[in-house]
Amino acid sequence: MHAYRTHTCADLTAANVGEEIRLSGWVHRRRDHGGVIFIDLRDHFGITQVLCDPDSPVFSKVEKLRAEYCVRIDGVVKARAPELVNEKLPTGEIEVYIRDMEVLGAAAELPLQVFGDQEYPEETRLKYRYLDLRREKMQNNMMLRSDVVASIRKRMWDKEFREFQTPIITASSPEGARDFLVPSRQHPGKFYALPQAPQQFKQLLMVSGFDKYFQIAPCFRDEDPRADRSPTDFYQLDMEMSFVEQQDVFDTIEPVIRGVFEEFGEGASVDQDWPLISYKDAALWYGTDKPDLRNPIKMQVVSDHFRGSGFAIFAKLLEQEGTEVRAIPAPTGGSRKFCDRMNKFAQEQGLPGMGYIFWRDQGEGLEAAGPLAKNIGPERTEAIREQLGLGIGDAAFFLAGKPSQFEAVAGRARTVIGDELGLTEQDRFAFAWIVDFPMYEADEETGKIDFSHNPFSMPQGGLEALNGDPLDVLGYQYDLACNGYELVSGAIRNHQPEIMFKAFELAGYDEAEVRKRFGGMVNAFQYGAPPHGGCAAGIDRIVMLLADTANIREVILFPMNQRAEDLMMNAPSDPTSDQLMELGLRVIPQD
Amino acid sequence: MHAYRTHTCADLTAANVGEEIRLSGWVHRRRDHGGVIFIDLRDHFGITQVLCDPDSPVFSKVEKLRAEYCVRIDGVVKARAPELVNEKLPTGEIEVYIRDMEVLGAAAELPLQVFGDQEYPEETRLKYRYLDLRREKMQNNMMLRSDVVASIRKRMWDKEFREFQTPIITASSPEGARDFLVPSRQHPGKFYALPQAPQQFKQLLMVSGFDKYFQIAPCFRDEDPRADRSPTDFYQLDMEMSFVEQQDVFDTIEPVIRGVFEEFGEGASVDQDWPLISYKDAALWYGTDKPDLRNPIKMQVVSDHFRGSGFAIFAKLLEQEGTEVRAIPAPTGGSRKFCDRMNKFAQEQGLPGMGYIFWRDQGEGLEAAGPLAKNIGPERTEAIREQLGLGIGDAAFFLAGKPSQFEAVAGRARTVIGDELGLTEQDRFAFAWIVDFPMYEADEETGKIDFSHNPFSMPQGGLEALNGDPLDVLGYQYDLACNGYELVSGAIRNHQPEIMFKAFELAGYDEAEVRKRFGGMVNAFQYGAPPHGGCAAGIDRIVMLLADTANIREVILFPMNQRAEDLMMNAPSDPTSDQLMELGLRVIPQD
Repeated sequence: MHAYRTHTCADLTAANVGEEIRLSGWVHRRRDHGGVIFIDLRDHFGITQVLCDPDSPVFSKVEKLRAEYCVRIDGVVKARAPELVNEKLPTGEIEVYIRDMEVLGAAAELPLQVFGDQEYPEETRLKYRYLDLRREKMQNNMMLRSDVVASIRKRMWDKEFREFQTPIITASSPEGARDFLVPSRQHPGKFYALPQAPQQFKQLLMVSGFDKYFQIAPCFRDEDPRADRSPTDFYQLDMEMSFVEQQDVFDTIEPVIRGVFEEFGEGASVDQDWPLISYKDAALWYGTDKPDLRNPIKMQVVSDHFRGSGFAIFAKLLEQEGTEVRAIPAPTGGSRKFCDRMNKFAQEQGLPGMGYIFWRDQGEGLEAAGPLAKNIGPERTEAIREQLGLGIGDAAFFLAGKPSQFEAVAGRARTVIGDELGLTEQDRFAFAWIVDFPMYEADEETGKIDFSHNPFSMPQGGLEALNGDPLDVLGYQYDLACNGYELVSGAIRNHQPEIMFKAFELAGYDEAEVRKRFGGMVNAFQYGAPPHGGCAAGIDRIVMLLADTANIREVILFPMNQRAEDLMMNAPSDPTSDQLMELGLRVIPQD
Repeated sequence: MHAYRTHTCADLTAANVGEEIRLSGWVHRRRDHGGVIFIDLRDHFGITQVLCDPDSPVFSKVEKLRAEYCVRIDGVVKARAPELVNEKLPTGEIEVYIRDMEVLGAAAELPLQVFGDQEYPEETRLKYRYLDLRREKMQNNMMLRSDVVASIRKRMWDKEFREFQTPIITASSPEGARDFLVPSRQHPGKFYALPQAPQQFKQLLMVSGFDKYFQIAPCFRDEDPRADRSPTDFYQLDMEMSFVEQQDVFDTIEPVIRGVFEEFGEGASVDQDWPLISYKDAALWYGTDKPDLRNPIKMQVVSDHFRGSGFAIFAKLLEQEGTEVRAIPAPTGGSRKFCDRMNKFAQEQGLPGMGYIFWRDQGEGLEAAGPLAKNIGPERTEAIREQLGLGIGDAAFFLAGKPSQFEAVAGRARTVIGDELGLTEQDRFAFAWIVDFPMYEADEETGKIDFSHNPFSMPQGGLEALNGDPLDVLGYQYDLACNGYELVSGAIRNHQPEIMFKAFELAGYDEAEVRKRFGGMVNAFQYGAPPHGGCAAGIDRIVMLLADTANIREVILFPMNQRAEDLMMNAPSDPTSDQLMELGLRVIPQD
């Protein structure tokens, strides 16, 4: 007989009745009933009811067991009486009479119960993560994550991508966040950096002729924490391919992502056609570059209806250059109470408020209500209604000014309206490619031109396009939005040194600076670089969506807390003076 | 038509003759022949011969192409004349007449040729790694590595292991090497560490109830470089399982490793039965705990034959406690020339030399030759011959003293003898489990007891065994040796706090110190820890063996050089003063 088990706690059925078996697992739940001790014995695979009556030679030992003791039991499988069969449990037909028992690992009093649904503060959960992870929900989340990663790998291999491991201790690779640095012992005073992403290495792989690369890659960004972001390391599906255009990348990654959501979405519908939406349209329609398309609301420009109208605030605003009035249609939102609440929401978000019109029928047919409608008069009001396709019981909200100043709030208002009115579909994964990102943006105050996203992207129109107004240049850069999250980000890369130097020049970096910062890659491009592009998909985000949680720590085994501390392992901690000496470093005393 | 290619450079055959096609790739080799330009166009998949005659509209452009230009060509597939078919090439039946050509990426003069077998200094290869990687041998090595990792993953999943990612930015986990530290920005003056191995996390996963874990895990050790070791990060197949004994781990991992060697060994024979050899026997028989069993030589103790013999040096040595005489049998090594050369080898390795006997037949039957034989006389000589099973044409070498002082040299001599005499089999992978490692060793000078290997291993005999002489305690600890390399290392873990504290106490660490250093794990063990064990296999080592190279940098995409520098990316480098300020660090000026 095996030293620890002949079966797992999910194995035994009526077919095993009469057998002498051995199980190992944890005391999940214990009940004493009529002098008999009932224990739900749990392992990774399932639960088996074991019981010990006072005749058992080990009754006195079993009596002392408490929750989460790890034990081995020997016993005999018996059929449960028909009325006691538990059909929810694979092992529900049987129970095991304990003949022998050995404590494999005793358990002290628990700071956190594994059995049951009690909630605990996150700090407790993280400090005793090994207990938290024993809970069913967390076991399921981690197995989901493991399965998702395996499925992604399989799908990428099936598409003839190969996985390669790129360096982790390497040089700084500026991606917009802060690097984690690693001091060098062999070169005191010098530092390595952990990669924010394998961006340069995957491009170098293309220059090296590998054609198709992917990696489930650890990435490191020293960022201030957020609920949906790990403060230290996270994983992405990183991929790159040579001799491709933007649509080739979409055609490659779409079936992978769609397949994963279909496989693990538990029956939620998964959009089959993923629209391409320009960055500009996304901002207008949804107020964000990661729209939630489960929400059917699409904003529209309605400036013309307010130009020269009796609503002086908007009419005057529209006289300024670069201003617009945009409407958020809100089907079924046609009540003063709802409209006032949304207006208040906008005020809480820092805007003066949102004007609104709502349409009702108080017995005399269609009637437009709200202060705005009065000010602009029935004709304009009706024209707006027609443009927005609204009717009785619906409402519309209006925001005016420079779009950059209200777009984000408009986007959030759209989300709240969709949620509150129940317009946003549930049990659906809705995807859209956001394309045509501008290469550059001007600083609002200084007017200085800088890259708005990834400086390594190929500008649409190539070198020629860079001779015009930088703010008109679009990049072959794209994001994939899913249910309001940015799931994937990528680009066709700028593989031509000439275009790259020009692109950086526009952002104020001369050739020497570019060579200094990205020397490895720029040098490589001088030796026959192929056109290439790719993307990266956030593994943690994908699993969060599939596990239906908004907290990234629910899908990571041993996460840091929000202060980037590991309470279980006690990190970060003080270095020894020997370590500092070897690294040639001194800690500056903090006030 | 696709923007870059209708086919890869490995696709076209006689079936495509007459088609207008598009290829993209690199100018591998160019020959000008009778006014026609022949180019071997290479991509990741293969090579296609393309040619351009003076009638082509792009002849003048094609004329300017040099090696490693990345180009797109449009052309027509034509059959080669039968006598020009190249049967070695999948595309050898055809060639492509260029109609149009576009330079996708121009190439400057090459510091390293991709075509051909020219050797380059390692510094050149690493600095221009993207060119080095284009070479056939390196492409093959990296694809082998990628395939091996994928195969290992598949095999582990098939055995119902799940892959989980453990933290990379974490706490120090002492494994015997130096940690890489990562300064914390949010907690200036404090440091994270990169894991030397996920040892504690995989054990915590078992405590968390996950039953079976594996990971292709990056590991980080700040070690001084060696040919077969990366100075920064390397990968291991890390695995752990609950409710197992040592043999269960062997039964699990053996088919995985064996399967990989059978799959990628290119026909080399792979041992099916892997012996278990105790650490003590391995030291005696092979002079190392990572023996190469392709070499049939097995050393033996022959002390008795020299005790009180006429060979005074050995006889006197044997009067001291703890001394032995060991013999290295050398079948077919029976010539004075060979014996003298081996004697010299031992002297070069720092020993006074190796005595030897060799057996010959100079027409008068079996005769033992060499100074030793004369000194000990014919009876003892014959007894030695019989013990070692040698005969005419064979030799034996002898080393005497405390085994710890000559064992390593004896092991190396065994290797050289096996190689020089052609005794060591080629094209074979020979495996052995080395088991029963001692838990402790005494410092030769101070006598201080310390762990000889992994402090987390379970001592054989449990708590009771720790009450005797520590030097007699063996651990459930094991290595897998293959062809002279340590391929796998593992243990059944000590999961009981009581035994762990006692084990550390023997090595001079009190409970407080253990709690401070391994607090995360020790705390966890108080809450019902299951018995567990596992191992880790070196991915780089496995690929090295399969690729038949002794240099780890041949199987890593972008390795550091031996000074732990990345010459391509320029790492490590100077931090900015802003970075240092944020981290609360100052660099101590070096002399």
